[in-house]
Amino acid sequence: MDIEKYIAGKKKVIDKALDRCLPSEKEKPKSIHRAMRYAVFSGGKRIRPVMTIASFEACGGKGASIMPVACAIELIHTYTLIHDDLPCMDNDDYRRGRPSCHKKFSEELALLAGDALLTMGFQLLSDAGNLNILKDISMAIGSRGTIGGQVVDMEEAKKKKRDLDYIAAKKTGALFEVALKAGCMFKGAGKREIDAISDFGKHIGFTFQLIDDLIDKDGYVKVYGKEHVRKMAELLNKRAKSHLSIFGNKANMLSGIADLILERRS
Amino acid sequence: MDIEKYIAGKKKVIDKALDRCLPSEKEKPKSIHRAMRYAVFSGGKRIRPVMTIASFEACGGKGASIMPVACAIELIHTYTLIHDDLPCMDNDDYRRGRPSCHKKFSEELALLAGDALLTMGFQLLSDAGNLNILKDISMAIGSRGTIGGQVVDMEEAKKKKRDLDYIAAKKTGALFEVALKAGCMFKGAGKREIDAISDFGKHIGFTFQLIDDLIDKDGYVKVYGKEHVRKMAELLNKRAKSHLSIFGNKANMLSGIADLILERRS
Repeated sequence: MDIEKYIAGKKKVIDKALDRCLPSEKEKPKSIHRAMRYAVFSGGKRIRPVMTIASFEACGGKGASIMPVACAIELIHTYTLIHDDLPCMDNDDYRRGRPSCHKKFSEELALLAGDALLTMGFQLLSDAGNLNILKDISMAIGSRGTIGGQVVDMEEAKKKKRDLDYIAAKKTGALFEVALKAGCMFKGAGKREIDAISDFGKHIGFTFQLIDDLIDKDGYVKVYGKEHVRKMAELLNKRAKSHLSIFGNKANMLSGIADLILERRS
Repeated sequence: MDIEKYIAGKKKVIDKALDRCLPSEKEKPKSIHRAMRYAVFSGGKRIRPVMTIASFEACGGKGASIMPVACAIELIHTYTLIHDDLPCMDNDDYRRGRPSCHKKFSEELALLAGDALLTMGFQLLSDAGNLNILKDISMAIGSRGTIGGQVVDMEEAKKKKRDLDYIAAKKTGALFEVALKAGCMFKGAGKREIDAISDFGKHIGFTFQLIDDLIDKDGYVKVYGKEHVRKMAELLNKRAKSHLSIFGNKANMLSGIADLILERRS
């Protein structure tokens, strides 16, 4: 199957599932439910939950049982975007060409909508019924993971020498890795599969960051130059895919996602 | 046993457990771990986690296995305080006589410390290993619970007619109720006990709000006057305790907590 078609198909299923799990805009308090939905349905590519589903399928999983985990990953990703955009953080007025959540609504609603999406992510994970996944995700996105990466990124923003590896591994990589791992764990895969998927996740998370830096002419590009960064990304892509060999053909979609991440231009 | 002694003893145990579960201030990124610890160890009375332990014990529970649940409740409570104090919300410079988290550190660190404490709360709940508790807590503190209450409180702050019952039930009551319920559920108590504890929780949560309003001369006091509000609080206290009868002597500490809440003057 063509990877773009695969992703488009999964995106539809994910969007439907997100629509079902989010409270209606008519439910009290309407304002926060509107803000939550506005942020979730803002044209995101759903790449993280697609990876969760693809890794579930690479391990032999089938059907919709994985959806609560996939949706949780997307809600958590959305919460990080809302909070990152806030005035006290990156102060971004736009997100994907539309006003960011706090611009569209208000700072306080955006703050609380982020809180509520994170909380709902955990609610969905409790529905999914796997405590190990829940624990791994909570660790990946806490002060030793995503949040830690955001803190260091913020604090070192104006420094000449930044701990780019830490920031990449934590701020971007941790959620990528756990999104993939969760799909595997949900299928009940063995340690060998889970470790392979985690290694794959680490490498494509890092690739994603390098491509981000190429697009923004920032981070690694400032230190190593764009030629070198592109070479690094290509190397990481190859190494990422080498970890998929134990899954055979079943990992074709994961492999395709890795290539799309490398080829991303915006 | 004297209730004040009981609470003081439990507070010590809770503080030790919180100290063990929070990352050290020496761990990278130090700033956020300092901010998390500053907010958690700021002289709170630990009334919510004490209630979790007391309800666990009222159901026949013994020992330290309940501590991850109790600590999770306190971390979640602390996260709500940090975010409520932020400039875009209540804009409070002080909390319990000390600079609030964003005043002591920065807005962005306070925001992220709140996020991290909420996340760590769920991590502890996954350690506790009870998915039903996790689900109930996530629902109690989401957009249909604590956060919903905060939204309505904020939006109606300047209105003459405020939905005080909704705000009290959600903003204050939901966490009280689930803190108590969680202790019961963790012991594996039956529906009858869980329902009784939930009813008890609803009533003392409401009492807590009425006493808050008496102290602040706000909310219900503005609508009904302080005499009437005090009478309501006394009545609710009696009704709360009536739900404890099925536990016999084992609920003495819960009953004592209900009285302390009624007698609170600051």
